[in-house]
Amino acid sequence: MAKQPKSPGSGSKPALLFDLDGTLIDSVYQHVLAWSTALQKAGLPVPAARIHRKIGMSGGLIVHSFMRETGRSLTAKEIKKAHRFHGEEFDKVSDQVRPLPGARELLKRLSQLKVSWAIATSGNREAAEPFLRLLNVGSKDTVITRDEVSRAKPDPDLFLAAAKKLGRKISDCVVIGDSVWDLLAAQRARALGVGLLAGGFGEDELMSAGAYRVYKDPADLLAHLEEIGIRVDND
Amino acid sequence: MAKQPKSPGSGSKPALLFDLDGTLIDSVYQHVLAWSTALQKAGLPVPAARIHRKIGMSGGLIVHSFMRETGRSLTAKEIKKAHRFHGEEFDKVSDQVRPLPGARELLKRLSQLKVSWAIATSGNREAAEPFLRLLNVGSKDTVITRDEVSRAKPDPDLFLAAAKKLGRKISDCVVIGDSVWDLLAAQRARALGVGLLAGGFGEDELMSAGAYRVYKDPADLLAHLEEIGIRVDND
Repeated sequence: MAKQPKSPGSGSKPALLFDLDGTLIDSVYQHVLAWSTALQKAGLPVPAARIHRKIGMSGGLIVHSFMRETGRSLTAKEIKKAHRFHGEEFDKVSDQVRPLPGARELLKRLSQLKVSWAIATSGNREAAEPFLRLLNVGSKDTVITRDEVSRAKPDPDLFLAAAKKLGRKISDCVVIGDSVWDLLAAQRARALGVGLLAGGFGEDELMSAGAYRVYKDPADLLAHLEEIGIRVDND
Repeated sequence: MAKQPKSPGSGSKPALLFDLDGTLIDSVYQHVLAWSTALQKAGLPVPAARIHRKIGMSGGLIVHSFMRETGRSLTAKEIKKAHRFHGEEFDKVSDQVRPLPGARELLKRLSQLKVSWAIATSGNREAAEPFLRLLNVGSKDTVITRDEVSRAKPDPDLFLAAAKKLGRKISDCVVIGDSVWDLLAAQRARALGVGLLAGGFGEDELMSAGAYRVYKDPADLLAHLEEIGIRVDND
């Protein structure tokens, strides 16, 4: 059973719910090209910039939305192939993926400050594991992956599950993400959303999707924690 | 000697000056990852999204601006290495590069309509050649590359040289590009600028940089030629 949510109050610190790709690790552009090749091989060619704007959704939503947008339909077998191709292509370049500036330091600092945080990603647990290690995220830390919910972003399920696992009310949480899908999921969940430019969405796109504030990368957020309600003066 | 510019008039058709990468060919994301690996290997690691926003400048400007932004300096030898690494990395994936939707059709249609057009790219001639062939651009078509001017975008030199080669006044030209550097170069040259979303810059970024209008890709521009002053009704 989930822990009972604590009451919010003037002294309470918000909990932070992080997206993974493009928010803590620098992997968005590798995903774009992996999808570009995969969709081309599956018979559904799509320009890279249009793929870029879908990253953050689950792979299932990406394929289905392009089928509808392009008017080309794939069989169930072809869709399965597209997913396999994406995995294979991404694996070829996944060793290039590095933490974003300040990502490790931000998570470490939050733990020192006793600010609850979790990672909620549209990717599967197996795909996320090597990157969680890269971020020094251990088995005691809270991570929600695609496998644990029925719907990925822009549905709010991942963030709702993360808040529940932390024992916090979603309205006490701040969602941090690089894509409009994170921010739309945050709106649907009634959490505050904060955008990072590290995934390549534009500032205006993130603000239009409801970002309360936009930072360059995790290092920039770490330098401005007070702006999202986290006191660091009396540590 | 360049041809004398014709006078503009109510019946005159504008000439179109196209950027290449991200405007006619789908190569921006390959360049982002090639620079990402190259800069990392040269000792100047930079997140991919920040590299993305520099694409469209010359390679020289990209390296120098990151040196200043990160406060790390490279020796002349290391800078040379970074350029070589970029070329090597891009070559590995250049076979994935395809024309953007409608690119070939747009250039062909403009020629049929007797609308002058040219391509002006911050890349070198050698790098551009295979992609020009991909677009069916031949030796009779007008192409200006980095080698032919002293300063690349956002300086206006490439577009000014293209207009001159077409024998048109720059004020009679419309610059079509996917990056803010194209649009800033257009402003400096006093040409009208039109943005395409095909390189992954956001619509708002392109409008803020002075785009008169923004289209999704060359196919979308082809479908709306009248909006930039090209009559197609009486062909």
